Amino acid sequence: MLNKATVERLIIYNRVIKELKAQGEKWVTSTDIARALSKTPSQVRRDISSLGRKGKRGVGYNIKKLINDLDSVLGLNDEHCVALIGAGNLGRALIGYPGFKREGFICRLIIDNDPEKIGSKISGIKVESSEGLAKKVARKKIAIAVITVPAEAAQKVVDSAVAGGIKELLNFAPVKIYVPEGVNIRYVDLALEMENLAYSLNYRKKNK
Amino acid sequence: MLNKATVERLIIYNRVIKELKAQGEKWVTSTDIARALSKTPSQVRRDISSLGRKGKRGVGYNIKKLINDLDSVLGLNDEHCVALIGAGNLGRALIGYPGFKREGFICRLIIDNDPEKIGSKISGIKVESSEGLAKKVARKKIAIAVITVPAEAAQKVVDSAVAGGIKELLNFAPVKIYVPEGVNIRYVDLALEMENLAYSLNYRKKNK
Repeated sequence: MLNKATVERLIIYNRVIKELKAQGEKWVTSTDIARALSKTPSQVRRDISSLGRKGKRGVGYNIKKLINDLDSVLGLNDEHCVALIGAGNLGRALIGYPGFKREGFICRLIIDNDPEKIGSKISGIKVESSEGLAKKVARKKIAIAVITVPAEAAQKVVDSAVAGGIKELLNFAPVKIYVPEGVNIRYVDLALEMENLAYSLNYRKKNK
Repeated sequence: MLNKATVERLIIYNRVIKELKAQGEKWVTSTDIARALSKTPSQVRRDISSLGRKGKRGVGYNIKKLINDLDSVLGLNDEHCVALIGAGNLGRALIGYPGFKREGFICRLIIDNDPEKIGSKISGIKVESSEGLAKKVARKKIAIAVITVPAEAAQKVVDSAVAGGIKELLNFAPVKIYVPEGVNIRYVDLALEMENLAYSLNYRKKNK
């Protein structure tokens, strides 16, 4: 398994190269990629060689082949069934995000316990309650769960999702979640991001 | 200035301790805090001593005083004027997030160039176009800008916000943004988070 930092760099390389492809480019050098990202060309070459691909001296990498390698390693050739657990503004923002579908993430299950939301449709998918969540997740072969419920509800829905077989989670609830070994949970903590800015702002005020 | 990792730990300590206070607790030990966070008590003591506060042997820290120290260092005693630049679902989710207001972040300016949104109100604030953004930001003494516009529009609005005096930005546009030295920009890249999960999922499939 590639380490996290390498995966993140490959994801960004892929983005940059797809942008170049959209502009009609056919070849890209490690220097081009590096420049777009404030990395060194040797770092870029090392990362790409970890995919088993080498550039040609002078012309670099064939963009089409490189995208194919990257999509294959990054799992972007397949579709991934996603469950959205928590159908508030944030959840709806994620589902509606154009990059979401484009990269193969297909929302197949939306869970919310608000009686006014249950039974309504979001992006064509009916909102269901969290009752029997593990079974719902297993039946629809959901691979990834996105957790946007309030902090106090998060652990319980994660437990059910994991019981249903989910091993990949993206959690927005601002609380530490316990998952069994082998389950991968990533955190996006928006309050933490804002509070980091408040610290920096406060430090500026006090030290100017 | 405290390093980033320390600031992030202090933010989380503050959250844990506020939770304990809400439960009626008056004292907390470094061991209690450490347990809630999978950190070591000595790490917690070291971090808290960087605020100039020491615990009492046996009883630990006075919660009220510790929260006061933390809020003061982290800039959470003051109100911070925020501009939301991009009033889509994600932007509205952020503004509507209960922790946002509670921690002193007050949205004072909402910018969006969608003609259907301009002039309408979100959370009581009128949506304005990005025309004259630098002046609007300066006039309202905005301290923090949250950028939720599409990737291709991001650099331009950031340039205007910075020209208007903003030094703290939280960017959700999945693109690298250039800011002058001394301006602090943090990235939340939701597509990157999802793609990381896709990689992990793909790796599992190939290696099971």
